[in-house]
Amino acid sequence: MQVELTRDFIATLSESIKREDRDVVIRLLENFHSADIAELYTQLNEDEGEFLFTLLDNETAADVLIELEIDDRKRVLKNLSSDIIARQLIDNMDTDDAADVLGELSNNRKEEVLSRLEDVEHAGDIVDLLSYDEDTAGGLMAKELIQVNENWNVVTSIREMRKQAEEVDEVYFVYVVDNSNMLKGTLSLKKLLLSSRTSQISDLLKSDVISVRTDTPSEEVANIMKKYDLVALPVVDQIGRLAGRITIDDIVDVIQEEAEKDYQLIAGISEDIEPTDKVWILTRARLPWLLVGLTGGILVSQVIGLFEADLGIYPEMAFFMPLIAATAGNVGVQSSSIVVQGLANQTIQISKTFRRLLKEFSVACLNGLTLAGLMLTYNLLVKSSLALTFTVSAALFSVILFASLFGTMVPLLLDKFKVDPALATGPFITTSNDLMGLMIYFSIGRVFYALL
Amino acid sequence: MQVELTRDFIATLSESIKREDRDVVIRLLENFHSADIAELYTQLNEDEGEFLFTLLDNETAADVLIELEIDDRKRVLKNLSSDIIARQLIDNMDTDDAADVLGELSNNRKEEVLSRLEDVEHAGDIVDLLSYDEDTAGGLMAKELIQVNENWNVVTSIREMRKQAEEVDEVYFVYVVDNSNMLKGTLSLKKLLLSSRTSQISDLLKSDVISVRTDTPSEEVANIMKKYDLVALPVVDQIGRLAGRITIDDIVDVIQEEAEKDYQLIAGISEDIEPTDKVWILTRARLPWLLVGLTGGILVSQVIGLFEADLGIYPEMAFFMPLIAATAGNVGVQSSSIVVQGLANQTIQISKTFRRLLKEFSVACLNGLTLAGLMLTYNLLVKSSLALTFTVSAALFSVILFASLFGTMVPLLLDKFKVDPALATGPFITTSNDLMGLMIYFSIGRVFYALL
Repeated sequence: MQVELTRDFIATLSESIKREDRDVVIRLLENFHSADIAELYTQLNEDEGEFLFTLLDNETAADVLIELEIDDRKRVLKNLSSDIIARQLIDNMDTDDAADVLGELSNNRKEEVLSRLEDVEHAGDIVDLLSYDEDTAGGLMAKELIQVNENWNVVTSIREMRKQAEEVDEVYFVYVVDNSNMLKGTLSLKKLLLSSRTSQISDLLKSDVISVRTDTPSEEVANIMKKYDLVALPVVDQIGRLAGRITIDDIVDVIQEEAEKDYQLIAGISEDIEPTDKVWILTRARLPWLLVGLTGGILVSQVIGLFEADLGIYPEMAFFMPLIAATAGNVGVQSSSIVVQGLANQTIQISKTFRRLLKEFSVACLNGLTLAGLMLTYNLLVKSSLALTFTVSAALFSVILFASLFGTMVPLLLDKFKVDPALATGPFITTSNDLMGLMIYFSIGRVFYALL
Repeated sequence: MQVELTRDFIATLSESIKREDRDVVIRLLENFHSADIAELYTQLNEDEGEFLFTLLDNETAADVLIELEIDDRKRVLKNLSSDIIARQLIDNMDTDDAADVLGELSNNRKEEVLSRLEDVEHAGDIVDLLSYDEDTAGGLMAKELIQVNENWNVVTSIREMRKQAEEVDEVYFVYVVDNSNMLKGTLSLKKLLLSSRTSQISDLLKSDVISVRTDTPSEEVANIMKKYDLVALPVVDQIGRLAGRITIDDIVDVIQEEAEKDYQLIAGISEDIEPTDKVWILTRARLPWLLVGLTGGILVSQVIGLFEADLGIYPEMAFFMPLIAATAGNVGVQSSSIVVQGLANQTIQISKTFRRLLKEFSVACLNGLTLAGLMLTYNLLVKSSLALTFTVSAALFSVILFASLFGTMVPLLLDKFKVDPALATGPFITTSNDLMGLMIYFSIGRVFYALL
């Protein structure tokens, strides 16, 4: 049952915690899902949260711990002994979650906790998982899975599955292996339900199964699961032996993180932050791109300095500097974002760069003509000087063309050199386009003011 | 098996299609997943695609049709008779996909296709689904599910499930209902595997099941599935009767679309576009925000016009206009994006607005002091006039404070009035901050130039 955390509820809970009234708190949290308790935790202060955590049974505590934000989790773990972490928490987690939590501990602490785990097989699986890079299929997968041998029949398989199923929370697929543990295929539970009890597994399995290798990057895993609408995906090692499985809920997190990373880059934020992070972390995440902008601004000031004499004679030139710079920035961000999104969705083929540029050029011409035409009308209406009128419209058109092509090229080039193309969105692109835009504006201005 | 669409492969395929060599094309596509065929389709021209489509068996054709982009799907359907659409395609689709495809047809065409469906029960389910708003749980759900009565035992349930399972592709959960079809709980297949054959379902079911109503908005459905790590979610009607189920793969699409929408808004793009869309559509999606920027630029030009006399005397003031405007824009986008992302992730509570503003204020002070300090040093080093030096640094600090608070407030206010807060990112926020930023700059400039 999902619950809503009203202000009243939190006030009541907070009061009961202050009175250290364990029974009331436990009753209040009855029927709460671990995800709700984790959300609740963020609403409490540190002492209240610690008290709350001590009231949870081991299994719930383990689930809540996984759901917490990393900073909160670190705070909870700091106050617990390695023995409690090992036997009450880690032993109650799936291997993938256990490896994630252990990966966040210091090396000493990790060793201590590992040495205190009671279930040796579980500990071994966790150690295996810790060896994979966290951004690969190996780092995402869990060891808990149901597997049967292709040489078994349905009855034997169901008997063996009953044993294995105790370890596994939810069963979506059964993986079929041969005697050397090589992945041969999958068996849907539906098929198992529908088949006679003496059928051989090798006759029932679906053999053209999609799998990834332990070293497949998580972004690629996400793309495969999205593309083929998969709920679970087996992971094999270099020679094809079944190593683990990835479920879609972990991939949803990967998709969300990828989207957030691109969003933060276009917004000019340089590390993954939450609004709940500390002031210092928020500041640090925002400063780098502001400094890029500042450096750009200084360069722009020097470009304008070259035209100081012109500005002294025609100060009206200054009126439309922000318009030119802003349009260059807006167009550049639009163009680069379309490329970045297209590369992420794989709707852009790098082989078609030329066609892409041609299309971008056409769009830029249409938008450029529209905006330049509007500004021409405006300046004629307000009776600006002819030189200014022509300068603004000609510069606007040129700047839109330049910013479009630049905004398209740079992320494509970055992608070609295996750099994240999203770096070329946001402040980087607006800053470089400001610079070029104003250079174009003043150069065109010199020509028109000389002519007219 | 996943395949890679190499240029060579596509060339070979394209040639075989041109020769209308059906056998070669069919052999080339053997083992291709429908998602791969759909991807292939986008690489072919219209005639080639049409030919390819005619070679697919009905079930594959139905799957490929669902995987296509909406424009491609419309093009394919345009050339097919209502009879073929009904009996070869729609009859082979799950109800949710069938309803999506039918929802894209004109009303006349839809009626025609519906009247030609052979499976009456299937048709009835599709008509039911068509009545729901597409952005709600009802619009996302499918009717295919496995349900058992709480009064049955395991043997009866398995027998009934075998009948139902023929209709359902993958079975992840069994839903338990009472005699009035009210949802009572879920039963995992694992539980069914582990239980004795005479156990009563009512003793096995998990009763605290998370469900949504047919009118729950899809964004909320996505949040619930993400929060509770669900793979499938039952949907009930107003009085709690089981109406359908939503699977995570459909929600992955919702999550992706939400993320893309926010990304396109911050990039200043006003409708959902793909790089493969036509020039006209790409232009139309980009023009609105460029016009907002242009209007802002004109207003800015009038603000600067108020200070024309000052500029004539101190043209150096113009040097740092772009720096001030760009910083205001960058800071505003950063602040607004943090709010928009926090609201989407539900990590921001609207009740804590004041605390949020205070934090933002602290971050802005730190960043403001850093940038103002750097500019002070720079201007002293390059021996700018004292008036300009102080003006730039004081204005920069004020502008950063203003842009931070404005960028935080506006999306929060929009959200309060149920307007999409993401509208306040991108060009809107940069334009308003340009305007205010330059007003602040020139006003401060007047003071310092009068004093020094």
